Amino acid sequence: MPDASPNPPYRLDADSRGVFVISATPFHPDGSLDLASLDRALDFYLHAGVHGITLLGMMGEAHKLTSDEGETIVRRGLARVGGRVPVVVGVSGGSLPAMKSLAHLAMDAGAAGAMVAPPYGLRTDDAIVGYMRAVAHALGPEVPLVFQDYPPTTGVYVSPACLRRVIDEVHTVAMYKGEDVPGLDKISNTRAAERAGGRRVSVVCGNGGLLLPQALARGADGIMTGFSYPEMLVQVYEAHVRGEPDAGEDLYDAYLPLVSYENQPGFGLAVRKEILRRRGAIASAAVRAPGPVLSRADLGEIDRLLARIERRSASTTR
Amino acid sequence: MPDASPNPPYRLDADSRGVFVISATPFHPDGSLDLASLDRALDFYLHAGVHGITLLGMMGEAHKLTSDEGETIVRRGLARVGGRVPVVVGVSGGSLPAMKSLAHLAMDAGAAGAMVAPPYGLRTDDAIVGYMRAVAHALGPEVPLVFQDYPPTTGVYVSPACLRRVIDEVHTVAMYKGEDVPGLDKISNTRAAERAGGRRVSVVCGNGGLLLPQALARGADGIMTGFSYPEMLVQVYEAHVRGEPDAGEDLYDAYLPLVSYENQPGFGLAVRKEILRRRGAIASAAVRAPGPVLSRADLGEIDRLLARIERRSASTTR
Amino acid sequence: MPDASPNPPYRLDADSRGVFVISATPFHPDGSLDLASLDRALDFYLHAGVHGITLLGMMGEAHKLTSDEGETIVRRGLARVGGRVPVVVGVSGGSLPAMKSLAHLAMDAGAAGAMVAPPYGLRTDDAIVGYMRAVAHALGPEVPLVFQDYPPTTGVYVSPACLRRVIDEVHTVAMYKGEDVPGLDKISNTRAAERAGGRRVSVVCGNGGLLLPQALARGADGIMTGFSYPEMLVQVYEAHVRGEPDAGEDLYDAYLPLVSYENQPGFGLAVRKEILRRRGAIASAAVRAPGPVLSRADLGEIDRLLARIERRSASTTR
Amino acid sequence: MPDASPNPPYRLDADSRGVFVISATPFHPDGSLDLASLDRALDFYLHAGVHGITLLGMMGEAHKLTSDEGETIVRRGLARVGGRVPVVVGVSGGSLPAMKSLAHLAMDAGAAGAMVAPPYGLRTDDAIVGYMRAVAHALGPEVPLVFQDYPPTTGVYVSPACLRRVIDEVHTVAMYKGEDVPGLDKISNTRAAERAGGRRVSVVCGNGGLLLPQALARGADGIMTGFSYPEMLVQVYEAHVRGEPDAGEDLYDAYLPLVSYENQPGFGLAVRKEILRRRGAIASAAVRAPGPVLSRADLGEIDRLLARIERRSASTTR
Repeated sequence: MPDASPNPPYRLDADSRGVFVISATPFHPDGSLDLASLDRALDFYLHAGVHGITLLGMMGEAHKLTSDEGETIVRRGLARVGGRVPVVVGVSGGSLPAMKSLAHLAMDAGAAGAMVAPPYGLRTDDAIVGYMRAVAHALGPEVPLVFQDYPPTTGVYVSPACLRRVIDEVHTVAMYKGEDVPGLDKISNTRAAERAGGRRVSVVCGNGGLLLPQALARGADGIMTGFSYPEMLVQVYEAHVRGEPDAGEDLYDAYLPLVSYENQPGFGLAVRKEILRRRGAIASAAVRAPGPVLSRADLGEIDRLLARIERRSASTTR
Repeated sequence: MPDASPNPPYRLDADSRGVFVISATPFHPDGSLDLASLDRALDFYLHAGVHGITLLGMMGEAHKLTSDEGETIVRRGLARVGGRVPVVVGVSGGSLPAMKSLAHLAMDAGAAGAMVAPPYGLRTDDAIVGYMRAVAHALGPEVPLVFQDYPPTTGVYVSPACLRRVIDEVHTVAMYKGEDVPGLDKISNTRAAERAGGRRVSVVCGNGGLLLPQALARGADGIMTGFSYPEMLVQVYEAHVRGEPDAGEDLYDAYLPLVSYENQPGFGLAVRKEILRRRGAIASAAVRAPGPVLSRADLGEIDRLLARIERRSASTTR
Repeated sequence: MPDASPNPPYRLDADSRGVFVISATPFHPDGSLDLASLDRALDFYLHAGVHGITLLGMMGEAHKLTSDEGETIVRRGLARVGGRVPVVVGVSGGSLPAMKSLAHLAMDAGAAGAMVAPPYGLRTDDAIVGYMRAVAHALGPEVPLVFQDYPPTTGVYVSPACLRRVIDEVHTVAMYKGEDVPGLDKISNTRAAERAGGRRVSVVCGNGGLLLPQALARGADGIMTGFSYPEMLVQVYEAHVRGEPDAGEDLYDAYLPLVSYENQPGFGLAVRKEILRRRGAIASAAVRAPGPVLSRADLGEIDRLLARIERRSASTTR
Repeated sequence: MPDASPNPPYRLDADSRGVFVISATPFHPDGSLDLASLDRALDFYLHAGVHGITLLGMMGEAHKLTSDEGETIVRRGLARVGGRVPVVVGVSGGSLPAMKSLAHLAMDAGAAGAMVAPPYGLRTDDAIVGYMRAVAHALGPEVPLVFQDYPPTTGVYVSPACLRRVIDEVHTVAMYKGEDVPGLDKISNTRAAERAGGRRVSVVCGNGGLLLPQALARGADGIMTGFSYPEMLVQVYEAHVRGEPDAGEDLYDAYLPLVSYENQPGFGLAVRKEILRRRGAIASAAVRAPGPVLSRADLGEIDRLLARIERRSASTTR
């Protein structure tokens, strides 16, 4: 970082890359926001070496926050990160005016871009492209967009051709977050289209880390997800960049039992918060109601998974 | 509340009945709230003789409003209605803390109860009953609840047995709004369970008026919906109460082509706002983006439907 | 029809039009096929003046039949109709080889075409177009296709652009059966594209008759559905063709309460079979298990609806 | 059956346990059944040491077969297995009469039981329990049932309480196949209910092997799935039975990258058939159309995954 300050804020663009961790939103056991833990979690992520941070993602329980709480987190989070890495803010949901208002507040506070998932109920290529055009128009040319393709939650399915249309027709889309499964072909197709002269965007995968080695091999520029050991993601990514994919994949495989365990829909969020709590990143593992609660058996499984990972990753990375 | 008129505010209870119209939320053409039109719409509904009003229903585009806008509508709407009829406020969505906050604000401002639809993703009897128990606990014993059963939008399916459990186990549920199709059996079952000694709740149907005569005959206490001619609903209801169901059904049938036309999912909201505009209830038919826009052909169909209804209802009600 | 026989079998084409009734599949009370009632039902439909008949539609409980039973119905039904009107056979479901086998058996027995709905799980324009291309290729150039667009059951959503692609790229598609709601715009768009030089297909609506007057006014060539009074559909269609839409719509409106009642998803099939039984078209109203069973209250509602329709349609058509 | 060994055919019961592999259904490249490969695949599975085999599972593309083809596979498969291990036959789909007919044919040919998944569209506890009661009644007391709980495909969600009702009320259910995710709690609950005196059933997991160590630790009696290395499942299961879960889990973890890769919905079937082909179990990897086709990139990923597994499982199991 340069000393003489007039450090321009990050803006997502086609060359953005690396590991963007989706921040948990910490709550007190009574369900109220725990802003001190938000600071602590952000420090934890930065210490893990992440290349970016995402606030108000689905993993951040964004849909359970009031508008005011969302704004509070954006302001507090951006202040804490203090420009050290780019920060993406999820603005999905509600109306275009509400999305615009949140996105502009975030950009004014130093965010690098706004993430948008097409909402439940969009069901055809034209509907999806039309929605993203309308969002881009409403948010304006100064807001770089992440287009989140996450059908398990949104119920919206994006074909390779539709994705290409979004990239070609919506020029403020700077990053594609591909979480469709199967969906590796969409990464390959995006890279092939670029080689054929198409507009380039940054491509990241997600899904808690699932199929990360394959995604990187297909040309992904990184990953955006909330896995509870973000330093593993960073090391796998960096091994890939160094041209040592096998070393990265060995490490990845050591954590795969936990990646797989966290990937239980709905339930995984509670697992992640519990692990973040154990690791000192947040004070309470509370998920805001309504949400999953871990049983004694679940906690025992986490104990066992972490112990096994510790043993094995020690032997892998030594 | 003034001392001279010891008029206590309405509270929904098992004896609540009649036509509760779901208020449109009026916007200016630029998508901002049109509060003057909200006043006008409420006056229009009261003039139509409705027995209650619902703010922030799905038809009220509640999910497109920011928290602040929602609160504004609740305050303004309750002030305008001024206690003349009971007002229900939809609080569905988000987290329990957010729902509690909105419900308490509404009750403090004079609302008669809060409406809650179980959210997308609840899929078993225990999950539904558990959710409603958690909501009732969070909102507290002073907030009468409307349990909205509307699977086309929520994707949540409630069996007769599950509905009975909600009624038996969640004591602040004062009203059941049944919009499952087919779902007339749930009205019959609810009444049968009451005759067998079960706890009574008020039962209303919805669905824009679809199957209203059947619902009333099965024992529904009224209807809660946003049909653009609420006075028709009032007359049908009152004919039913007077014991003249055939007269009511003749009038109903005259409007059925419009009921049926408005019942096109997603699209119907734009039709209703257009008709409310034509009838002088609101200044602009704007639906907040993203939302449907009427084509010239659609507008022509509305012209034709209204002309035919006018002709026929004239001859029916003479 | 010419006397000297070598009457070529009907083939669906872009000029096919009129009312295609979807035949019920009659069962004995024990769930076995009732082929005598199939004959009776077909005679009943022909007597009602329908312009075509569809076997093995969804309303025909096709998905509950074994392959052998399906073939039996096709052979028996085509023999009974004896070439008096075109007969469409539903072949949706299963694999392409199975669809090909049934479609060829049907065409050899004198069918006019095969109806195909894209199966649950197709979610993008390319997936839908690709599926229809694969079906057309598998069934071959001699099998005219009906493309059934019925999202409430299939979960497949077809945009206007996607529909245009199916029509332009899949040349054996002779008829579009539009049952999306809202979906009137797809009829308008199809006609507009034809006026602009696009390939013409026959367009029919469905949905048990819902929005029939609007569909005809938008340019539909007819309707394919299983409404229990097919003669009403015939008269409305013929009034439209004669240029007397108001007369048709008056009659339609008289039956709309029943159209609306039958349109309860899943449940409507049992209503239709009960009415067909009362009208003497089939011996038993049995729906094959698993399926809906009418309660006493349901039967009472049917009594009342039919009595009211009789009264009103008498006064309308006099 | 020979006279000297009055070896009674297997019947599934509460004590059934071990690895039931779901057999692929082999096709020739032109899509026709490849019965010689079916024999070869069954020999391959038996050689891998499986404790049971399932024919006509979802992984067996059962829904793409005609009724006749299904019967052919059942007869041929049961003859080939020759009573060496119990064989379960999937009978889901269609009507109760069709299910009964297939189940009885299978039992007469020596099957150990019939597997049933509640069909898409069942949405409440009562609907699910009622369906399973109707199936059990239709199939009769001589057909042991596997109740398959697989919501990703069926869209049917079964709560712990609903599962308990199925077990308690439907006495021919001998085995519960739990594939809900998250769903480990249902295994725990089932075992807890048995300890409290409830009826015992056999419990197996599935999902291609996902979360197998956790399922066994929670009390599952085995697994039923189509993973392409069934011998791994056998060894993990046997290590668990021997009381050496860590040894089993080490082996499991070595294969987890492939388990995870195969678990891509829809796509995984093509991966499995490709690997089975490479391993000599079937002649062609053809999936019946419509179905996924592997790209060059997909094939390269399989190469890499298998090479890495070979290396690592060698070092693990040495």
